[in-house]
Amino acid sequence: MSQNNIIYLDNAATTVVNSEVLEAYNKAKKLYFANPSSIHIPGQEANRLLEKARAQILSLLGVNDYDCIFTSGATEANNLAIKGYCLKHSNRGKHIITTNIEHPSVLEAFKQLEETFGFEVTYLPVNKNGVVEIDSLKSCLRKDTILVSVMAVNNEIGSINNIHEISLLLKNYPTTVFHVDVTQGIGKIKLPYSDIDMFSFSGHKIHGLNSSGALIKKHKIELLPLLSGGGQEYGIRSGTNDVALAVSLAKALRLEIEKIDENYAKVKVFAEFLLKYLSENKDLYEVNSGENPYIVNFSLLNKKASVLVEALSSNGVMVSSTSACHAKEEPISYVVKALGKSDQLAHNTVRVSFSHTNTLDDVKGLVTTLDRLIKELK
Amino acid sequence: MSQNNIIYLDNAATTVVNSEVLEAYNKAKKLYFANPSSIHIPGQEANRLLEKARAQILSLLGVNDYDCIFTSGATEANNLAIKGYCLKHSNRGKHIITTNIEHPSVLEAFKQLEETFGFEVTYLPVNKNGVVEIDSLKSCLRKDTILVSVMAVNNEIGSINNIHEISLLLKNYPTTVFHVDVTQGIGKIKLPYSDIDMFSFSGHKIHGLNSSGALIKKHKIELLPLLSGGGQEYGIRSGTNDVALAVSLAKALRLEIEKIDENYAKVKVFAEFLLKYLSENKDLYEVNSGENPYIVNFSLLNKKASVLVEALSSNGVMVSSTSACHAKEEPISYVVKALGKSDQLAHNTVRVSFSHTNTLDDVKGLVTTLDRLIKELK
Repeated sequence: MSQNNIIYLDNAATTVVNSEVLEAYNKAKKLYFANPSSIHIPGQEANRLLEKARAQILSLLGVNDYDCIFTSGATEANNLAIKGYCLKHSNRGKHIITTNIEHPSVLEAFKQLEETFGFEVTYLPVNKNGVVEIDSLKSCLRKDTILVSVMAVNNEIGSINNIHEISLLLKNYPTTVFHVDVTQGIGKIKLPYSDIDMFSFSGHKIHGLNSSGALIKKHKIELLPLLSGGGQEYGIRSGTNDVALAVSLAKALRLEIEKIDENYAKVKVFAEFLLKYLSENKDLYEVNSGENPYIVNFSLLNKKASVLVEALSSNGVMVSSTSACHAKEEPISYVVKALGKSDQLAHNTVRVSFSHTNTLDDVKGLVTTLDRLIKELK
Repeated sequence: MSQNNIIYLDNAATTVVNSEVLEAYNKAKKLYFANPSSIHIPGQEANRLLEKARAQILSLLGVNDYDCIFTSGATEANNLAIKGYCLKHSNRGKHIITTNIEHPSVLEAFKQLEETFGFEVTYLPVNKNGVVEIDSLKSCLRKDTILVSVMAVNNEIGSINNIHEISLLLKNYPTTVFHVDVTQGIGKIKLPYSDIDMFSFSGHKIHGLNSSGALIKKHKIELLPLLSGGGQEYGIRSGTNDVALAVSLAKALRLEIEKIDENYAKVKVFAEFLLKYLSENKDLYEVNSGENPYIVNFSLLNKKASVLVEALSSNGVMVSSTSACHAKEEPISYVVKALGKSDQLAHNTVRVSFSHTNTLDDVKGLVTTLDRLIKELK
C-alpha cells in the first residue's frame, strides 16, 4: 500500500519523503561517494559538501555560531545531549529536570541516568493544556541542577511550551544547561532557537529521510561521546559521515522553513475542519489538543480507540492511537493522563497529525469515514 | 569528481554503492514509507519488510538463532556491544581485553570504559604479522574478564585473526563474552560467525549505504542501551526504524556473499600484481600486509607517504596513508608501529584497498603512476 492509495494522517509518526529531498540524496550518493575523512580529492570534495550542509542548517535556524552534530535521528540526538552532558559533568551536580510528557527518547534517557548512573530526576508535571508552568519549574531548580530538558512541542497532543520564557528563567542559573527536543516543532512552529543551549531533531518528521537528524549546541558545551571512535563531528559523534543524508537533511529543512507560514495556514484549515466536526459531536469525542494545528488529539467517550484506529486503517485512513514510539507496548497515553484525564479517556485517544502534503479532501474523507465508523462500531 | 573519472583504490575507507542496492533503497522508501511501529496497515507492511530484511541477514550469515540489531553503522554497533555489555554487567567484573590494533571505534570505546567508568583494560599486542597470539590472550584472561573484543580483519594491514581458535579458548571461560568487529572481513573473507557471541559490521564497506549496519548477537546477551527511547530493536536500540536502509543492508550483504569466492579470486590477481611490483623494488618499499588480498599496505623507505598519496590523488589515483578514521589527526600508523616497525616506516605507510568493482587496468594504472611519482618526488 503506497501513500497514493490512502489518506495518510499520521505525520507525527513519520512523513512521506519529499521527492526533491530523495533526489538530492541520490545525487550526492552518486557524485560524492568518498569518505569525507579521506585526504584524497574525492574525500575532500565530500567533506566540503558535508560542511556546506552543516553551515546551511545552522543558518536556516539562525544559530550560525552553534555546532551542528549530525546524528542518526532525534532519538540519538536526545540521548547524546542528555546522557552525554550528564555523564561528562556529573561532578558539577547530579540533579536533572524534565517533564512527564516528553518523548520516550528523553524520558528513557533520564530513567537510565536515574537507575544506572545515580542521578536524581525531577519529572515536572504539566498543566491541563500540556504546558510546563514556569513557577513549577522555578520551584524545582537547585544548585546542583545541571540540566533541564523540556520539549518544544509534544508529539501526542501538540502542546507548545514557552521556550523563550523558560530560557529567561534559566539565565539566572548559569550552571544549568537547557536542552529542547524540537522534533515536532521544527519547520512547523517558529521557535527561539538561539535561546536554547542544545536542541535535537530528525529529518523524517519534516519530509526528510529516516536516519538523518542533528544535535545543535553551543560551542562551549562539552559532551561525553556515546559513539566513540574516529573523532568525526568534533569528536562527539564518531562514525563515517553520511554526506548524502546530511545534504538531504539540509534540503528538507530548507523546504519546510521557506514555507513555514504558508504551510501553517494550510494545516490550520485542516485542523479547524476536524475540530468543528468534533465539537459538534461532544457526546462522542473529547478534544485533548490545543492551538497547534499540526496535531489534533481526541478521546472517544464510548468506543475503543484501538478498534476505531484499526477500522479507519481498513477503510484507508491512517491515524494513530498513541504515538508510534510506544504504540505496540502500551495502549494508554501517559501524555493524556498527565493532563489530568481519566484512564478511560487516556486509553482511548486518537491522534490525527497533518502535513502540508495533505489536502482538505483528505480531512473530509477522514471526517466522513470517522463519522460512519463511530456509529457502526459496537 | 565522480568514481567514473578516477582509479579508486580506497575501498577499506568506503565503497561505491552498488546501483542495485540504491534502487532497493529507493523502492522501499517510496513503497514502504510508514513508521513500522505504527499499528495501521502501511505501518504493519513496513514492519514486515523490516523483519524480512533482519531474517535474511541472519540467514546469510548462518546465525538464524541470533538477534540482528540494526544500527547506524559499525561504529555504533561496536560501541553498543562493548559499552552496552560492560555497563550492564560491571557487577560481574571490570576487566576487559582487546588488541592494540583495533579500529578507533573499538579502541576509544575501551578507553572511555577505562577512563570514565573505571574498567581495567588489557591491550593485547600482536605478532609481526598483526595477528593475536593465542597464548598471549590466554595469559591475560582472568576470573573478572567479562569481555574480549578482537577484530576479524584489520582495517590498515588486512591481517586476519584466527577467530575460531580464539572462540575455542574462550569456551573455557563461560563468563567472558566474545565480540568481533567483522567490518573489514564480512562479505570478503569467510568467517565463523556462529563461534562468536556478538559481531558488528557496516553496509558502506560492502557497496551498501552509509548509516546502515548491525550488531548481531546471541539472544541471551543483555546490553545497556546507548540510545534509549521507544524500545525498537528488542529495546536495545531505540529510534524510528529505517526500513529502506535495512532492506539495502540485506541486499548489499547478499550480493557480496553470493560472490565471495569469485570476488576473492579477482581481487587476489590485483594484489599479486601490485605485490610483484613492490617486491621488485625493495629499495623503495617495504610491505606491511600479508595474505589478505583486499588490503595491500606498504611503507616508503625514502619518501614521505603523505606527499605521495597527495600526488597520486592529483594524478587520479585514490589510496590512503593510514585509515580514513584518523587520517586527518594522526599521520603515524599505530597499527604498523604495533608490528614492531620503526616510527619512520609507520609514518610513511600507503594503504591500497581493493574491491571486485576494480579492474586490472586500475591496478596497472596505480603501478605505472606510483612508479613514475616515486622517482619524481624529492
